[in-house]
Amino acid sequence: MSRNIIIEKGSYLPAPKREVELVERKGLGHPDSIIDGIMEEISKELSKAYLNEFGKILHHNVDKGQVCGGGTEVEFGGGHFRKPIYILLTGRATTKAEGKEIPVQHIALKTAHGYLKKAVRNLDVEADVEIESRISDGSADLVELFLRGPKVPFANDTSFGTGYAPLSDLERVVLQAEQHLNSDPYKAAHPEVGEDIKIMGLRDKDKIKLTVAVAFISKFVHNIDEYVKFKWRIRDDLISLSKKITQKEVEVFVNTADDVENKSVYITLTGTSAEMGDDGSVGRGNRVNGLITPFRSMTLEAAAGKNPVNHVGKVYNVLSHDIARQIVEEIPDVEDVTITLLSQIGKPIDQPKVASAEIITKDGNYDRIKDNVHYIIDKNLENVTEATNKIVFGKVTVF
Amino acid sequence: MSRNIIIEKGSYLPAPKREVELVERKGLGHPDSIIDGIMEEISKELSKAYLNEFGKILHHNVDKGQVCGGGTEVEFGGGHFRKPIYILLTGRATTKAEGKEIPVQHIALKTAHGYLKKAVRNLDVEADVEIESRISDGSADLVELFLRGPKVPFANDTSFGTGYAPLSDLERVVLQAEQHLNSDPYKAAHPEVGEDIKIMGLRDKDKIKLTVAVAFISKFVHNIDEYVKFKWRIRDDLISLSKKITQKEVEVFVNTADDVENKSVYITLTGTSAEMGDDGSVGRGNRVNGLITPFRSMTLEAAAGKNPVNHVGKVYNVLSHDIARQIVEEIPDVEDVTITLLSQIGKPIDQPKVASAEIITKDGNYDRIKDNVHYIIDKNLENVTEATNKIVFGKVTVF
Amino acid sequence: MSRNIIIEKGSYLPAPKREVELVERKGLGHPDSIIDGIMEEISKELSKAYLNEFGKILHHNVDKGQVCGGGTEVEFGGGHFRKPIYILLTGRATTKAEGKEIPVQHIALKTAHGYLKKAVRNLDVEADVEIESRISDGSADLVELFLRGPKVPFANDTSFGTGYAPLSDLERVVLQAEQHLNSDPYKAAHPEVGEDIKIMGLRDKDKIKLTVAVAFISKFVHNIDEYVKFKWRIRDDLISLSKKITQKEVEVFVNTADDVENKSVYITLTGTSAEMGDDGSVGRGNRVNGLITPFRSMTLEAAAGKNPVNHVGKVYNVLSHDIARQIVEEIPDVEDVTITLLSQIGKPIDQPKVASAEIITKDGNYDRIKDNVHYIIDKNLENVTEATNKIVFGKVTVF
Amino acid sequence: MSRNIIIEKGSYLPAPKREVELVERKGLGHPDSIIDGIMEEISKELSKAYLNEFGKILHHNVDKGQVCGGGTEVEFGGGHFRKPIYILLTGRATTKAEGKEIPVQHIALKTAHGYLKKAVRNLDVEADVEIESRISDGSADLVELFLRGPKVPFANDTSFGTGYAPLSDLERVVLQAEQHLNSDPYKAAHPEVGEDIKIMGLRDKDKIKLTVAVAFISKFVHNIDEYVKFKWRIRDDLISLSKKITQKEVEVFVNTADDVENKSVYITLTGTSAEMGDDGSVGRGNRVNGLITPFRSMTLEAAAGKNPVNHVGKVYNVLSHDIARQIVEEIPDVEDVTITLLSQIGKPIDQPKVASAEIITKDGNYDRIKDNVHYIIDKNLENVTEATNKIVFGKVTVF
Repeated sequence: MSRNIIIEKGSYLPAPKREVELVERKGLGHPDSIIDGIMEEISKELSKAYLNEFGKILHHNVDKGQVCGGGTEVEFGGGHFRKPIYILLTGRATTKAEGKEIPVQHIALKTAHGYLKKAVRNLDVEADVEIESRISDGSADLVELFLRGPKVPFANDTSFGTGYAPLSDLERVVLQAEQHLNSDPYKAAHPEVGEDIKIMGLRDKDKIKLTVAVAFISKFVHNIDEYVKFKWRIRDDLISLSKKITQKEVEVFVNTADDVENKSVYITLTGTSAEMGDDGSVGRGNRVNGLITPFRSMTLEAAAGKNPVNHVGKVYNVLSHDIARQIVEEIPDVEDVTITLLSQIGKPIDQPKVASAEIITKDGNYDRIKDNVHYIIDKNLENVTEATNKIVFGKVTVF
Repeated sequence: MSRNIIIEKGSYLPAPKREVELVERKGLGHPDSIIDGIMEEISKELSKAYLNEFGKILHHNVDKGQVCGGGTEVEFGGGHFRKPIYILLTGRATTKAEGKEIPVQHIALKTAHGYLKKAVRNLDVEADVEIESRISDGSADLVELFLRGPKVPFANDTSFGTGYAPLSDLERVVLQAEQHLNSDPYKAAHPEVGEDIKIMGLRDKDKIKLTVAVAFISKFVHNIDEYVKFKWRIRDDLISLSKKITQKEVEVFVNTADDVENKSVYITLTGTSAEMGDDGSVGRGNRVNGLITPFRSMTLEAAAGKNPVNHVGKVYNVLSHDIARQIVEEIPDVEDVTITLLSQIGKPIDQPKVASAEIITKDGNYDRIKDNVHYIIDKNLENVTEATNKIVFGKVTVF
Repeated sequence: MSRNIIIEKGSYLPAPKREVELVERKGLGHPDSIIDGIMEEISKELSKAYLNEFGKILHHNVDKGQVCGGGTEVEFGGGHFRKPIYILLTGRATTKAEGKEIPVQHIALKTAHGYLKKAVRNLDVEADVEIESRISDGSADLVELFLRGPKVPFANDTSFGTGYAPLSDLERVVLQAEQHLNSDPYKAAHPEVGEDIKIMGLRDKDKIKLTVAVAFISKFVHNIDEYVKFKWRIRDDLISLSKKITQKEVEVFVNTADDVENKSVYITLTGTSAEMGDDGSVGRGNRVNGLITPFRSMTLEAAAGKNPVNHVGKVYNVLSHDIARQIVEEIPDVEDVTITLLSQIGKPIDQPKVASAEIITKDGNYDRIKDNVHYIIDKNLENVTEATNKIVFGKVTVF
Repeated sequence: MSRNIIIEKGSYLPAPKREVELVERKGLGHPDSIIDGIMEEISKELSKAYLNEFGKILHHNVDKGQVCGGGTEVEFGGGHFRKPIYILLTGRATTKAEGKEIPVQHIALKTAHGYLKKAVRNLDVEADVEIESRISDGSADLVELFLRGPKVPFANDTSFGTGYAPLSDLERVVLQAEQHLNSDPYKAAHPEVGEDIKIMGLRDKDKIKLTVAVAFISKFVHNIDEYVKFKWRIRDDLISLSKKITQKEVEVFVNTADDVENKSVYITLTGTSAEMGDDGSVGRGNRVNGLITPFRSMTLEAAAGKNPVNHVGKVYNVLSHDIARQIVEEIPDVEDVTITLLSQIGKPIDQPKVASAEIITKDGNYDRIKDNVHYIIDKNLENVTEATNKIVFGKVTVF
């Protein structure tokens, strides 16, 4: 059956062409990202356990979770926890099928501990975090559906996913800046830089302004002078990095709320603001391409933790970005493309109600590329279940 | 100082003109709406308590919270709870200022209980819900800022709000359908209709299709025949209602996942799916105009629970919708308007970095209305603090 | 089969004959008593629900629970809660038998709320208490045993119960003093007297000294003078009461830790110290006769919350006191009697391994009364299941 | 000031002379012992932290805590967790003094994790246990008292402690049997033997019957035959051990509730019944000498977790046993001694209101030993604060 693919000239103004562009990324150690990361990792581990036991991923949606900030007393060179961070894991997952059981709570708690230790290097998870799982069993009907369902799964809902390409200069700068500061080599060289890095990028015509909030780690910062030096270093590093990405002028401001004179600055014990009362929820941070882009097409769906099989809020968002990326890579004439996939509940996910591509070409000519775009979309929908594998085995990001 | 107000011809296709339009509303008893409602009510009660004690609303952001679904055993005519619903309240709120204390936890728990009883009439809150507050104290700096800050508050963040008007036919149908079914008179006449009503509206060209999920209440439904009769009644009622709102053809489907033959239908003890494992999080449901509108401009910000003074994610979203509404009401030529307000952290919120109106007029003429639009925007920003009052005293919705 | 009943001359010194006697009672509003009371009430309500549904009391032991103290700010005339009291209900109870379900969590939470409201009149349970149930399902084997077990249940364990009679003067003074201050008429006349009343009675030869800790309720005490007046009134009331009970000299000291000069006195919002951080656990307070009597025979078993059918730690303790009471009532020659019932796991509870009575008579003659004592013990064991009824329907205390 | 030491001829029948004697020990992995152990370890670690920071142990009483059993699915050779064990830590502890802070929650959580790993070798604490601390801050008054109090602390309450010596044959058999099975060498040789070992010893005249419940560990037991073989080995080992301790006849019964035919036997994943729903509370298990001895003098006080400085319920119980032990060791004529120490609230703990020794000598002569006993009691009270050190540094048991 042929797919309902609509390709049209985009009637929108691409973000990079707007006068003002706003982009944000909440880094790995931000409370919203922490809980996105934990729940997504749990979904991946559950998926692998299901595959292992049943040869299929069974029903789960662990796309809810909460970080409740703790309390710390921090000073240059050290500090301590007053109140632990509390993390609530929730959602639903299949615990039993075909007479076999999957230790969902065990996997959830083990994964949460393991993930946290990697994501926030200086957090003593055992002593300073309380983790509670309220993940409950899914419905029996859904167990059957996932076990004995069709080869191409049916959409769980009438919903849609959207994605675009390419990233604008601003988007690339914001994304790569956080990835750089949170990379292993950077952390090895600069242990004082915590994982809670929030970058707000604002482009006003041709000038980019990055406002960077970095949680420094107290035990590696011994006094206010060192702190200031470290801040300048980050600024310099990000300016150097930006020059490799864009030719626009880039200004970088680090921890603008600091009051250096009164030594009231952004230092933490652990490198995450979750230690000091900042809460986080699944789905309140980055979209699947790692960014919050208010002037781009986005969905509200929290992808993290959703089942990667038939949850349109996850699969179609990941797929839309992937398709958009392929289109701009393979068709040089495309300046900007926005993909939207609209599902129909209960219909195979390779047959969306509408798959639409809104395209802006460099030369204004659309007819020449239409077939090519159609082919890419069609092929990706044909192989829609590959998106599931990419998600489970970590080949794509979801936050 | 004059405001940076930009008024331009909209380059977008208004949602009602698209071939396909998708609109969703999660009703009052939906788990996401329940927790939105609780946290927003807590914000309002805290605001009133602060006003009462200090003459000013103090810092709080109780915009995080989680409903973890319970477990029930339901049958026609009755049933019982196996596992209570668990509700986690979180966020931050000022507990102390000027030597006076505000009993934040007391207000939070009392408000949560009271709100739940109203929002889900058939829920025995004492026996079937566990509520826990992990709301923690806000930082001392922010206490000062709110107490002795300027008359026009400074934006808490670089962020933006957006709103549009008018509602499309589909949007009005979806919104009013839920409001009708959850109105006091309707509930009095039809006690079997629970508050968890989720309406998905899809317009395909000129045909509207409403997919309505209604949690029926078991003690008022005695057998499968009665159930089916009740479903038809809702369908008929919504078709009648729709005819008053739109001239488009409207089809209504209620509880499409039912398997009537096997008596596997959507009945609940309480009228909310939260009783059976469905979770809810703040900010995962309706936007401030009560709808989820993927083809309209939206922000990810969860308005519910945020402080109504300087949190741009709340104030600017409410204000944008309000401005847009005023524009279409006062200027008949305007067919569609989208307002976007971009804040600058630390700057007065009546001075956004950009206030933009993208306008589509009925006759294509923009010059004639520009001054009028400018005036409306300017006046609203001038009186920005009125938005705060409207929120606190319940004159506007936030979810 | 004849019972192994041993009656012998007591080799111990009865408590009232010791030089020093120590007796304590933790009143209804003491944190340990609060949780004893809640869990016992839950056991009673579960028992009734089982009787109702199955005609038999099914397996449960909800004899674990915890009150974690809250936080309040109190002043003469008022105050408020800073942190709610947290109450954890735990233990095991049968949720399912013969295809029917008992809503254990619903009963537990509802009962806990209801009991608390009565036991601590001035506590706003909804706003200032968080209650969580972690009661879990019992094992399937035990369901069968209770459903289809023998008419006389088998002992759940090798354990023992013990009781004595009569109460000494000191014991009666301590017990009745608390009961008086917590009686409805007294509360009606003296609303300032909270339910958390702890009485420590010390008899040194012929002088009795009562040390009484009373949580006053702030909204009924307007200043330090009133407070002092109220304290004296309690002292006077208890001295009057004591005179009706004993001819020994009785001194009464109320709230000895008060520092009246600095207005540091024992006032509370609610009448229980649980509001200010004092914790309580099941089984850490009064024994089944309502007293802690270190110089009497006691068991460590927490009776509250245990199943009243075959849990020796509950049934035998209640029965031992009951038998002892009957013996002294019916046989005037008996000065003091201590009953000990030792069970054998898996044997009918009307056939203890040993039922022993240690008796001290007024005239030193034992032979005359032996038959009579034997008869009373034998009859009570014969009708052992009546103890269950007395417990379930509140005819005997268990704490 | 001379102490009020009363030495008299015991009027009681020593337990070993009774016809029937009952003794119980809940081993290290029993849920009651687990939580006793955790809270006592927290008290010790807090004490060390206070000593380190302030040179004095500050106020704390972390003598409340709860283990809520989890859920497992177990089979020969393996199994998995369905529901984690939940552990609640509660009580009060000083967090701040002299401007310095002690990270109480951090110490509590870290200690609980560390202790659990040692006490239950096969428990994967991270994945299968949820630990929550609700330990709250103590009152400011008590901080001062502990910091600047007198050299000999004042009793926190009017209460008493009691102890006796020597252990009877039955007591030694019960105590050493558990210690043997839970010793490192035994565990190394017999990894299938879990730490949850409950021993009930009953002596009926000259015959001792040990009823031993041992939680076997499934991964080390591959089938029912192996299980039965392991049970017999334990029986044989305990009979051998008993022969070294007593000349009485000893019978040993292991896991009497097993139904071998139906393979319904006592195997666990972890070696503790807490994995399968069994709850534990502080103070509901062994007394300070490691035993529950209903026919001996005991107090209800939970020693575990109490502050070892001035909490009479801890210090006087430990000291009474220690004194009794010294008396029988140093004075061969003493057959049995029971020590009782009665405190007076607010008086120095080296000056109890009464220190009484009830003594039974082998030859019936008391006068000869009185001075010696008096000297031992007096010396121990003189050096009462040494008991504190013994407790903190683990030289004595408290459960």
